[in-house]
Amino acid sequence: MARSVLVSGGCGFIGSHLIDRLLLRADLETLVIVDNLWTGSRQNIAHIADPRLSLEIQDVENFRSDRRFDEIIHLASPASPPWYMRSPARTIKANLGGALNLLTLLKPGGRFCFTSTSEVYGDPLVSPQPESYRGSVDCTGPRSSYDESKRCTESLLFETQRVDGLDVRVVRLFNVYGSRTRIDDGRAISNFISQALTTGILTVYGDGSQSRSWGHVDDIVDALERFFWRDNISHRGPLNIGNDCEVPVLQIAKFICSLVPGGSIEHRPPAPQDPTNRCPDLTLARRILPGWKAKTGYQDGIERTLHWFREQMAAIDAVPVAPAFRDTESSRPSK
Amino acid sequence: MARSVLVSGGCGFIGSHLIDRLLLRADLETLVIVDNLWTGSRQNIAHIADPRLSLEIQDVENFRSDRRFDEIIHLASPASPPWYMRSPARTIKANLGGALNLLTLLKPGGRFCFTSTSEVYGDPLVSPQPESYRGSVDCTGPRSSYDESKRCTESLLFETQRVDGLDVRVVRLFNVYGSRTRIDDGRAISNFISQALTTGILTVYGDGSQSRSWGHVDDIVDALERFFWRDNISHRGPLNIGNDCEVPVLQIAKFICSLVPGGSIEHRPPAPQDPTNRCPDLTLARRILPGWKAKTGYQDGIERTLHWFREQMAAIDAVPVAPAFRDTESSRPSK
Repeated sequence: MARSVLVSGGCGFIGSHLIDRLLLRADLETLVIVDNLWTGSRQNIAHIADPRLSLEIQDVENFRSDRRFDEIIHLASPASPPWYMRSPARTIKANLGGALNLLTLLKPGGRFCFTSTSEVYGDPLVSPQPESYRGSVDCTGPRSSYDESKRCTESLLFETQRVDGLDVRVVRLFNVYGSRTRIDDGRAISNFISQALTTGILTVYGDGSQSRSWGHVDDIVDALERFFWRDNISHRGPLNIGNDCEVPVLQIAKFICSLVPGGSIEHRPPAPQDPTNRCPDLTLARRILPGWKAKTGYQDGIERTLHWFREQMAAIDAVPVAPAFRDTESSRPSK
Repeated sequence: MARSVLVSGGCGFIGSHLIDRLLLRADLETLVIVDNLWTGSRQNIAHIADPRLSLEIQDVENFRSDRRFDEIIHLASPASPPWYMRSPARTIKANLGGALNLLTLLKPGGRFCFTSTSEVYGDPLVSPQPESYRGSVDCTGPRSSYDESKRCTESLLFETQRVDGLDVRVVRLFNVYGSRTRIDDGRAISNFISQALTTGILTVYGDGSQSRSWGHVDDIVDALERFFWRDNISHRGPLNIGNDCEVPVLQIAKFICSLVPGGSIEHRPPAPQDPTNRCPDLTLARRILPGWKAKTGYQDGIERTLHWFREQMAAIDAVPVAPAFRDTESSRPSK
């Protein structure tokens, strides 16, 4: 049966990889991306020439359409702390206002998929974090617009499932990295790589002992594809998706220094309320997605990401104003 | 200086008591209530004849006005579990959509006050709960629309304060009871009283050992008045407000049985995710509001509330269709 699918945030880092996967589906008739290019970029889908795909440049919370969709995948949100901490109200509107609006565009019986986050666990007192862990989020803190709007969007979706029978799928993504991250994204791996390739000084906040589970985007999108549409799964989530191999931030910085000669590490004060650890309990993911694992080791994944960043920066050097990274719409966060 | 004030939910239980206090202010020029009469009632303000007061019957998230206000007090939300559990999306829209909308109606430099809730602590692992406790809320659970939308609204306001300097005041209210509660409200004290006065069978969910701190509305509104406008306080919150004398639910039921002869207690299975305890740590409140305390003991407060309920039910008996409780707008929760 021919399916119509809407993806919010489809020009973003993870969203654009998901778009590539969706376009491999034979049953896909139309694919609409809604993206305001706040943190996403047209460049991320510039390689696609498929008549089924269309792009609507619009804030997801304000997107209006007469069409209704069989499947909606809601990814629209900044995901990097410096980005959402600059524009908290806008972050809440994208996540929660976006979900409220998109629910009105779903066909009866349609499926609503949402990418939540490991940030719902806050600075966890339990490690690794199972889906049942209720989290330790300061709802008045400087990271709360992201954490709390993801939490409240989960609530909206699971409660709508309980009351109205919505077919919902919710994943909680742990740290993800890979190609199509913004050069000015601000999260550790992309930051280290762009610093290594430019100034040569890699900024580590705090002593770098804080650990993260680094999931390569290809592995993460494998899981999304299976959970959101490919496998026949009755489980609705929340489902942790990530790499459960914890690696300290300092170790990542040192590895990148080893790949780009001449780099050095500079320590700065810790970011506010930066979690000390973050690691998924993947027990449920292994049961729901048998055979799936985040198989890319950080060394391999970082080498591939470094290669992509080098290509991008060479392209920027070759063209005075490169549309991917000098686009005023996408590089200026407004409120 | 003449002040314009907007109160959302001003026809509700706590809201209408706050309206009475606001109208005592000499500096108050206009007072606008925005209320959709979902859980509030016109009857709660029927005793007021003050030309400064006007009522706009409207969902707070959709209220539009050319006026801007010096002070906005956002109370609009159902607060009783059976009410918000029936309409979770609407609950989220009232709290968070309401706050986002009302922020656009505040004059530059104006003050935004919000009544958050002890439910942000969920089923607490710490007792009593200080404001710094991050809570234990299941963001996918059947009570989450209320808990998470209050948490996310706190985030919106404190983050807007951090980024834009918003003058914000946030309280976390623990259990409140008293006159002007709906007869069909569904929370323990009002439920027990209306059952004692009608069927004579008081329903206790679980064994009744779950404890609450029962704050009489007069004491609670004393604190709101001081924190929101009367005292010169720089603290912005969150500030716990409640009675820190914990009393088990069963003890309350037995006391009401002692006041209304012929009553008996029936136990039913526990409500889903009903917290086992809830008690405010009032250390901060004592420092910020010196001299304030919830001085009404539960025996005195319940006797006064019982008296009010008896009057209301006599009025309903006297008039075939009593506007306060047969109002179709206020008694039928729609989605």
